[in-house]
Amino acid sequence: MLQQLDEGRLQELAPVFYPESIAVVGASSRADSIGSLWVQGLISSGFRGRVYPVHPQGGQVDGLAVCASLGEVPGPVDLVIVCVPRGSVLDIMDDCAAKGIKAVYFFTAGFSESGEVGWDVVEREMVRRARDGGFRIIGPNCFGVYSPEQGIPYGPFGVMAGLGSVGFLSQSSGHMGKLLEYALVHSLGISKGISLGNGSDLGVADFLEYLALDPRTLVIGAYLEGPRDSRRLFEVTRLASARKPVVVWKGGRSQSGARSAFSHTGALAASSLVWSGALKQAGAIEVSGFDEMADTLLLFEKVGRLEGSNVGVVCGITDGGGGEAVLTCDAFADLGMDVPVLDTVTNAEVLSLVGQVGSVLGNPVDMSQRQRDPEALRRAMELVAGVPAIDILVVFQNAGVIFDEFAEETLDALNDTIVDFSRQHAKPVLAVLQPGTAESRRMKVQRRLSEGGVPVFPSVERLAKAVRNVSRYSGPEHV
Amino acid sequence: MLQQLDEGRLQELAPVFYPESIAVVGASSRADSIGSLWVQGLISSGFRGRVYPVHPQGGQVDGLAVCASLGEVPGPVDLVIVCVPRGSVLDIMDDCAAKGIKAVYFFTAGFSESGEVGWDVVEREMVRRARDGGFRIIGPNCFGVYSPEQGIPYGPFGVMAGLGSVGFLSQSSGHMGKLLEYALVHSLGISKGISLGNGSDLGVADFLEYLALDPRTLVIGAYLEGPRDSRRLFEVTRLASARKPVVVWKGGRSQSGARSAFSHTGALAASSLVWSGALKQAGAIEVSGFDEMADTLLLFEKVGRLEGSNVGVVCGITDGGGGEAVLTCDAFADLGMDVPVLDTVTNAEVLSLVGQVGSVLGNPVDMSQRQRDPEALRRAMELVAGVPAIDILVVFQNAGVIFDEFAEETLDALNDTIVDFSRQHAKPVLAVLQPGTAESRRMKVQRRLSEGGVPVFPSVERLAKAVRNVSRYSGPEHV
Repeated sequence: MLQQLDEGRLQELAPVFYPESIAVVGASSRADSIGSLWVQGLISSGFRGRVYPVHPQGGQVDGLAVCASLGEVPGPVDLVIVCVPRGSVLDIMDDCAAKGIKAVYFFTAGFSESGEVGWDVVEREMVRRARDGGFRIIGPNCFGVYSPEQGIPYGPFGVMAGLGSVGFLSQSSGHMGKLLEYALVHSLGISKGISLGNGSDLGVADFLEYLALDPRTLVIGAYLEGPRDSRRLFEVTRLASARKPVVVWKGGRSQSGARSAFSHTGALAASSLVWSGALKQAGAIEVSGFDEMADTLLLFEKVGRLEGSNVGVVCGITDGGGGEAVLTCDAFADLGMDVPVLDTVTNAEVLSLVGQVGSVLGNPVDMSQRQRDPEALRRAMELVAGVPAIDILVVFQNAGVIFDEFAEETLDALNDTIVDFSRQHAKPVLAVLQPGTAESRRMKVQRRLSEGGVPVFPSVERLAKAVRNVSRYSGPEHV
Repeated sequence: MLQQLDEGRLQELAPVFYPESIAVVGASSRADSIGSLWVQGLISSGFRGRVYPVHPQGGQVDGLAVCASLGEVPGPVDLVIVCVPRGSVLDIMDDCAAKGIKAVYFFTAGFSESGEVGWDVVEREMVRRARDGGFRIIGPNCFGVYSPEQGIPYGPFGVMAGLGSVGFLSQSSGHMGKLLEYALVHSLGISKGISLGNGSDLGVADFLEYLALDPRTLVIGAYLEGPRDSRRLFEVTRLASARKPVVVWKGGRSQSGARSAFSHTGALAASSLVWSGALKQAGAIEVSGFDEMADTLLLFEKVGRLEGSNVGVVCGITDGGGGEAVLTCDAFADLGMDVPVLDTVTNAEVLSLVGQVGSVLGNPVDMSQRQRDPEALRRAMELVAGVPAIDILVVFQNAGVIFDEFAEETLDALNDTIVDFSRQHAKPVLAVLQPGTAESRRMKVQRRLSEGGVPVFPSVERLAKAVRNVSRYSGPEHV
């Protein structure tokens, strides 16, 4: 059994996440080729190093001269991105070795995951040549590295999200792309990401070890299909989970899903029960879908460990709150959590604040009778957050038809009140913002809250799942 | 045991859904009073009858003279909407009786649901006076009737959705409002709706019976907290379910939820196990939240009964499809449904269509290598829909970062292909449109598909739940 993480991993993978120079092999002077998009993306994202396009036809990409081969690059190269047809990859391996690079990743696909005879052999031969050449492979069949600190965007389209403390590794480039989109919309901060595709050489366990050691990463998320290094993975997960939360979504749980996973990344999926048991034993937090994964990472990043999961709720802020109140209670109770009653004194104060008639009373507090009044909202939040039995404050808004009846300034004032309150009080404040018909207004409010540090969830069911997952983590306080 | 539905119910409630005249009591000449908003809403929605604002101060609302009392209305009144303080309701009951009205509904709240001594008595007295006066009560504490065919909007803000075949009854006005918003966004058509609040007189069973008999309603949805007429409700549900699908979401399942439900509508909730058992026995389809309810109604309305639940999937249309393919298989398998393998011949054709390299092969079909090609999309849909083992075709799109790289015309052509195909083929076509960062483009595509008759779901998990629910219904074919 692995006793401790290998601290050398940080040093070993530094050229992957902090390369001083990147060569893009397959970057022709045609501006819309995938390779040249990759070069343009690196430049526009402000990559802190030198970029070398490489293509036998030469020419220029975005003002940079295209080198005819890797050997002709006029300086050392740390990292190579390859996007050429699969028939050329073995020659490129030799060029990489000759150039003395540190690591290479292959956007190029069509190896073991293709199921075609011979291409699994080529994949193994690539790994053999990399070993001999003293460098590492990421992929093939992947989008590779995302390292915002170093100005490395995600994939060929120059995607960048905000910098933060979530490290993410993924066997699907698509799901990693979705996470960055979620990050953009929810102000989730990402420290580093890796799409590792087939994981022929550097595997899931290697990157998990790196993220566990990386001081910029405080929470780890992983989308896995069927890593080849699963034994070591569980040992690394155990050690990583003792340091920071590790949230795992396992795809290919079903028979048909496993079949697709093989065709996607050549992964051989073990049974889902085996996985769940092993992940639990290793201290990881297993989630069962994208939304749950992203929401859980968001809550970990914004709030950190939760000391309890009793919620106080303020609802009816932009719509009638009766149905919202009942729904919130059910959603938390369904997951074994409580929306406790208020003490008599607080309850009486709530009563005098919101009025007896037409509001649901107690916890949840239904603001429908004081709907456009930021001061009443602040007071309700204070009352609820002041109850010792309550650990978390949830504020429920609804971007529906009535949202459109609110003046811009009223909505802003209400949401600024939530942000202010959240900054001034110790108990975590979380927002539900249900979509409805007022989508452009919803997006504005979402941004206001998210950028103000209040995590926003589109439904109370999703919020409740994230709270349940985060409150299960008993590792060290990380914020 | 109830042997059959009471056909007289249609006649009895005709004045509720098809009134020829409506008086709004409490509609002062102040343009922003709730009562005058209600009047304005009726006029702007094109109500097919006469509207009479009533308020002791007289004046005008939207060009209509305000009558000082119900007695002064110069013509017969079928339906009365009351929005006055609760202290005045008993007097109004007498006015209603004197005027010979058919039904009244009370936006006014603060009766049995308030928990205050005396107001439950007032609520019972209202019912007694209505019985004596020969008219019926809806509510109190409700938004009342939504009848688009008659030009009656929902609530005081003039909300109207498209006309269709879903009838909906709700103990929460908020959730009913959410359903209309969903209807607007997803082109779900509503035949009639009713928010019945406390249900002191006309109860859930009465309206369910009406909707079961109503020829314009082909699918019924219900949000219930704790109806007072639950014994009769289960009998009516059994008879209604034999005619058309009845989809029920029960709120207040938890202890805290039940407490909120009481404070919301004075409902006394029974245990959730009792409910689930009784609903199942009655042939209703129980759902456990808003999204599941709305999605299930959408699928029933657009597609009707499903003969099978085996799905064929085309993904990777606007983003890498590998992760989408694995996710789709898992989502269906989690609910006990299958994404079957393709036969050898079809598989070979798919292979030659999408190419061996870089795509997930089989079912799901991953279009990532032919991403911007509407003809390839059409061919893929034909191939998959042509497999006899496949009952339903799912087309998976993703409104993410890469969406923004697609030209407007390309997106339009792809989505027109989906709509055309859906119109020309017998097997149902359903769309997944995952939100990402390209929200305004997503909304456009959503509208294009929805208005073209293709039901759109924001995630494959939600789509899978709706398919499971609809495929469980074994009643008569209704479309």
